[in-house]
Amino acid sequence: MSDDLGAVGELAALARILPRLGGAAALLGPGDDAALLAAPDGRVLLSTDVMVEGPDFRRAWSTPEDLGRKAVATNLADVAAMGGAPTGLLVALTAPADTPVTLLEGIADGMAAACSVLAPGIGVVGGDLTRSPVLTIAVTVAGDLQGRAPVTRAGARPGDVLGYAGDLGLAGAALRLLFAAGEQDPAAVAALRRDRPGLLAAQLAPTPPIAAGPAAALAGATAMLDVSDGLLRDGARIARASGVDLDLDASAVEREADVVAAAAGCSAEEALAAVLGGGEDHGLLATFSGALPTGFRRLGRVLEGTGEVRLGGAVASDAGWDSFAG
Amino acid sequence: MSDDLGAVGELAALARILPRLGGAAALLGPGDDAALLAAPDGRVLLSTDVMVEGPDFRRAWSTPEDLGRKAVATNLADVAAMGGAPTGLLVALTAPADTPVTLLEGIADGMAAACSVLAPGIGVVGGDLTRSPVLTIAVTVAGDLQGRAPVTRAGARPGDVLGYAGDLGLAGAALRLLFAAGEQDPAAVAALRRDRPGLLAAQLAPTPPIAAGPAAALAGATAMLDVSDGLLRDGARIARASGVDLDLDASAVEREADVVAAAAGCSAEEALAAVLGGGEDHGLLATFSGALPTGFRRLGRVLEGTGEVRLGGAVASDAGWDSFAG
Repeated sequence: MSDDLGAVGELAALARILPRLGGAAALLGPGDDAALLAAPDGRVLLSTDVMVEGPDFRRAWSTPEDLGRKAVATNLADVAAMGGAPTGLLVALTAPADTPVTLLEGIADGMAAACSVLAPGIGVVGGDLTRSPVLTIAVTVAGDLQGRAPVTRAGARPGDVLGYAGDLGLAGAALRLLFAAGEQDPAAVAALRRDRPGLLAAQLAPTPPIAAGPAAALAGATAMLDVSDGLLRDGARIARASGVDLDLDASAVEREADVVAAAAGCSAEEALAAVLGGGEDHGLLATFSGALPTGFRRLGRVLEGTGEVRLGGAVASDAGWDSFAG
Repeated sequence: MSDDLGAVGELAALARILPRLGGAAALLGPGDDAALLAAPDGRVLLSTDVMVEGPDFRRAWSTPEDLGRKAVATNLADVAAMGGAPTGLLVALTAPADTPVTLLEGIADGMAAACSVLAPGIGVVGGDLTRSPVLTIAVTVAGDLQGRAPVTRAGARPGDVLGYAGDLGLAGAALRLLFAAGEQDPAAVAALRRDRPGLLAAQLAPTPPIAAGPAAALAGATAMLDVSDGLLRDGARIARASGVDLDLDASAVEREADVVAAAAGCSAEEALAAVLGGGEDHGLLATFSGALPTGFRRLGRVLEGTGEVRLGGAVASDAGWDSFAG
């Protein structure tokens, strides 16, 4: 008998999926018109991100668990980048009627795993499951500021130190290897997974430093974001919002590129491109007026300026990802 | 020059769309990693719903403004159905690269209009715009309980009165006429819009009684939900969650069917089917131990039972919408 969504039906599929998401710490979880989460701060952080099959992921590369892990991790990073602690997730999943329910169970397992590793105690508290020609995973995350001010992109000041927590360039380098392996050669993808598991995970199932977000806020971070579209492009967002320039240390960038080159077995030039423009690492780029907190390493400094990112003083060109361009 | 998303690009498109969404009352709105909303109650209601082109809407029937209005209205109803007041919205929109930006502007206009009519002062505070082969609109709504207990589906008690606020059956009857008009005959759809504007709006751009949700909670509603999948199906959700039966008054249901028959020009039998199984009206079905508050009309009463919906005492069969079944 078929195990696809069309044969199983929405309610029976949900009855199999929801228990895998675990008992999240919600005041009211799935099963009513809305979930109810604690918001002890009296304010709530909210962000949403969608992953679409094709533009954003391929089943030839990602396992269902990978998809669940990545969808959750990228959203958690958005709350962390404000200095908040995640408190719960909503998942709106659209899928063709011939989607195996086991695939959705795998996505749920990956979501639960990402929560338990990156934000213990939280989970999926609600969502929607709808028929569509395309598999899409839209996650909304809620977070709590625990009494602190939000860390926006607009507070960087000349003299601040620029720091970074998490992988940088690995996700982009991994994507390059996956494109080289292609979608039609499962053996090549399996070999990549076997030979470079950490590198592949950086792209397919990233583990951004979620706890470093609140830690940065406590340490007085003046600006912060998570790097999803590339260091130069996202750095420019801080620079423009703050009305400053960010100056990357050439030596720090070289050190990052060395790590990528060793992990990916690629050239120094390819590694540099991944560090500056790769994106999708979802690490935290932040500026501090004082010392960097644990978990952050120095990438450069903040200068007076007009919204540019510089590398060793010279303006570096923009590079990164636009969902619709190119 | 082309005005489609692929030519305009994500950032330029957002620069045109976001201003149309108006200045929402967020502590932090679009432009950072997450939005920040007030949650004065110390808890936050959250719900999400997706509309997918094809299964959930057709551009031959709905204007872009309709799509925006419906996506917002259905989500607001989920917060209202918990007894809460909506506080803000996130929108995750996926669209093909050849989507005209004017279409997204129209959706934004509809969202702003729905907010100003149904929940003045709130708006879209964040979101995501991603390339996809299919146009989908995923909305997440946040709400505040204003110090009250949430009204779940589980509190109905024998002896309670069953009440309803909003349209009932009109959305289903309108869908029937739209299917009869088809997707290939713009003149037939235009004639429907001209001859039965209120009926069409009930399906394409519904205006659920959002303020009736908090009013019901204040009046001591014991259980509540918004009717999205049909009166019998959604009524059974209250009945099962509460461990009771709901008994619909035959005369009340007849009265509802008369309204539908007059609005749609359909037979009494078709009108009855729309009232009992039509769905998509997103009115509020609630039970009360005392008198019905303003805005609610009596549909029946709560009996001891095991989770059935009855009509004039006899068990009525289930009917309604499953996204994947049939």
